[in-house]
Amino acid sequence: MSIIVQKFGGTSVRDLECMRQVANKVQRKLRRGDKVVVVLSAMAGETDRLLCLAREWAPTPDLAEMDCLVSTGEQVSVSLFAMLLKSQGVNARSLLGFQVPIETNSNFSKARIASINSKKLKALLEIHDVLVIAGFQGSDCDQRITTLGRGGSDTSAVALAAALKADVCEIYTDVPGVFTTDPNICSLARKMERIAYDEMLEMASMGAKVLHIRSVEFAKKYNVKVHVRSTFSDEPGTIVTKEDEMEGVLVSGIAYDKDQARVTLVQVLDQPGISAAVFSPIAEQRILVDMIVQNPSKDGRTDITFTVPRADLEQTLKVIEGLKYEIGFEEVRHDKKVCKISVIGVGMRNHSGVASMAFRALSEENINILMISTSEIKITCLVEEKYTELAVRTLHNAFGLDKANGQNSC
Amino acid sequence: MSIIVQKFGGTSVRDLECMRQVANKVQRKLRRGDKVVVVLSAMAGETDRLLCLAREWAPTPDLAEMDCLVSTGEQVSVSLFAMLLKSQGVNARSLLGFQVPIETNSNFSKARIASINSKKLKALLEIHDVLVIAGFQGSDCDQRITTLGRGGSDTSAVALAAALKADVCEIYTDVPGVFTTDPNICSLARKMERIAYDEMLEMASMGAKVLHIRSVEFAKKYNVKVHVRSTFSDEPGTIVTKEDEMEGVLVSGIAYDKDQARVTLVQVLDQPGISAAVFSPIAEQRILVDMIVQNPSKDGRTDITFTVPRADLEQTLKVIEGLKYEIGFEEVRHDKKVCKISVIGVGMRNHSGVASMAFRALSEENINILMISTSEIKITCLVEEKYTELAVRTLHNAFGLDKANGQNSC
Repeated sequence: MSIIVQKFGGTSVRDLECMRQVANKVQRKLRRGDKVVVVLSAMAGETDRLLCLAREWAPTPDLAEMDCLVSTGEQVSVSLFAMLLKSQGVNARSLLGFQVPIETNSNFSKARIASINSKKLKALLEIHDVLVIAGFQGSDCDQRITTLGRGGSDTSAVALAAALKADVCEIYTDVPGVFTTDPNICSLARKMERIAYDEMLEMASMGAKVLHIRSVEFAKKYNVKVHVRSTFSDEPGTIVTKEDEMEGVLVSGIAYDKDQARVTLVQVLDQPGISAAVFSPIAEQRILVDMIVQNPSKDGRTDITFTVPRADLEQTLKVIEGLKYEIGFEEVRHDKKVCKISVIGVGMRNHSGVASMAFRALSEENINILMISTSEIKITCLVEEKYTELAVRTLHNAFGLDKANGQNSC
Repeated sequence: MSIIVQKFGGTSVRDLECMRQVANKVQRKLRRGDKVVVVLSAMAGETDRLLCLAREWAPTPDLAEMDCLVSTGEQVSVSLFAMLLKSQGVNARSLLGFQVPIETNSNFSKARIASINSKKLKALLEIHDVLVIAGFQGSDCDQRITTLGRGGSDTSAVALAAALKADVCEIYTDVPGVFTTDPNICSLARKMERIAYDEMLEMASMGAKVLHIRSVEFAKKYNVKVHVRSTFSDEPGTIVTKEDEMEGVLVSGIAYDKDQARVTLVQVLDQPGISAAVFSPIAEQRILVDMIVQNPSKDGRTDITFTVPRADLEQTLKVIEGLKYEIGFEEVRHDKKVCKISVIGVGMRNHSGVASMAFRALSEENINILMISTSEIKITCLVEEKYTELAVRTLHNAFGLDKANGQNSC
């Protein structure tokens, strides 16, 4: 008996017609003799409707009550869908977070899964062919309802797949899979057959919003094979899997992020503790500093450049202004018109030359690189925003990503 | 520390403005130093919306999934209301049926309460000043969500009051209390200060829809003082209480029920087992036969007359038709234009003469009595429907119900 987990988002269950399509996908697995665990989100728009209601009732609603409120969205989805399956003669039943139970900590509105009772689930799968489980929700040790934060249904699905040692966790979405880059700006972007967990994490954090980042972390930790695919077709999508199941691919994808702003402190006094003095007060404001570059010191002074999310620029500048006396810089420069471009690939771990290849490709197009930062599996360049599309297409082409996997392999 | 249970129906929580009024009523109790358990229904219209949705999804929806679905209505009410109270600085929290827990059997859509964990509730009342509990719902031994059937929130409230030994269970509704008869057809109808459980049961079953009948049974069994009162005023309503707290009232109220039809089997062969032969097949169709009269036999034949709910008349006639050969009656007569009028009062237990007083009053108005049945605390007459208003007013007047309690006492 194979266990398949299938997760469907809000647009996939937004009305009866859509739910019927989802039921077809479930029935297809049943005909193969599989047991199916279906994880559902709230019907599209429902969570937002409930959040609006809450804010009308209380300016800063109690988070525990908020979770109790919004969790009704998934409750409606799973009971309706289980009804539909039962009316089709399928031996199905719904399960809410507390019924599984999916135990979480008590961090309401962004709770973390602590454990899942797989024994109970397995016993239920002996009786039922399909379990329809509410995504996004769990319950704490006091049996209060918790939610896992935005995109939490992906995490629910992966966690359930891990607990049940499911063959695969299929995440159905409105795109056909994970692409080598954004098809909207690069017509040669190609759907990947496979992507490594770490690559997916980098893609996800760069705004490739196919999979919620925590679900990928979970999948990596428990080695869950995740299949990202389209609700609206039967084509296979992209398998997110272990690195060693990748076939020696050097570069997997090109990601970009326009939501960045660059800040430079000019002529900072270069003394021990200067970085902490700059970045601690920024961190205290919960602003996420991403790239940081410090030039070599000259005459005891240096320039410090870093990037922050564009929405946080004003506040960052305010914080910096307050540090002027303490740090003693000459001036602050900033630039909103920048874009972060990343070349991502687990193959880089064992190969040099990828960075220089990227730099050369960009320079051949006269794209000036404003900042560089690298990690084991990623090379990131900050460029002027106007070059975004050109830079993405150039790098996509340079690493042969328009061709089937393996073309850029070593 | 006094514990007060307050139950509010769907119209009382239908929007933010109404919920604010409910919050005021709760705050007033808090200022007296009471602990308050608030039991809420779903916002008006919500349960029906969900039921419609379910029927769209499946022609005969699975009842367990149905309960899971409709229970979200109360979940939304209690979380929003708890948010509101918390934003007003009240130490409140919500509780769903499974969190209390309110344990029920697994008779989905009309479950019966088996037990309530009062220890946990009392511990929570040490921490919180207000518990906002979802009415209408419970959970079975498998932790599946159940609902208690129409009007189940009343039952939830009374059961919670019983479990907590609350001082009083206040049922807020859109009428000021229980009246001696329907004020719409008798302008002299008077709000009763008190009514005995048994009287309330008779009034409720006769269509005085102020309190759900099962909640009254529960209140009687556990001796819970119930106060039926208006959400929209601060006037005291009607206390439903033990018989021995009534002050020697003979007749408390006049009820009527137009939803009746009369069926007569003419010239039935009067032999042993004839009643069973007639009424068993009707009962098997779950049709509720109410009044039954069998005339004295003559020449081995008798007439049997009984009443059924008007909506069940066609089906009843069909059943009877099928029995013709077996029973051997001459013909079947039926009449939809009838009305059942009841004189109700626990004082009758110890007094004769009430029935004859009622018959005389009706005859003085030339109202023909079609059938009579009596119980310990009730005299019921079937009359032609056109006499309904006149009969009610006549009896109301005959027993002095327009005057304050005690006028018709002994």
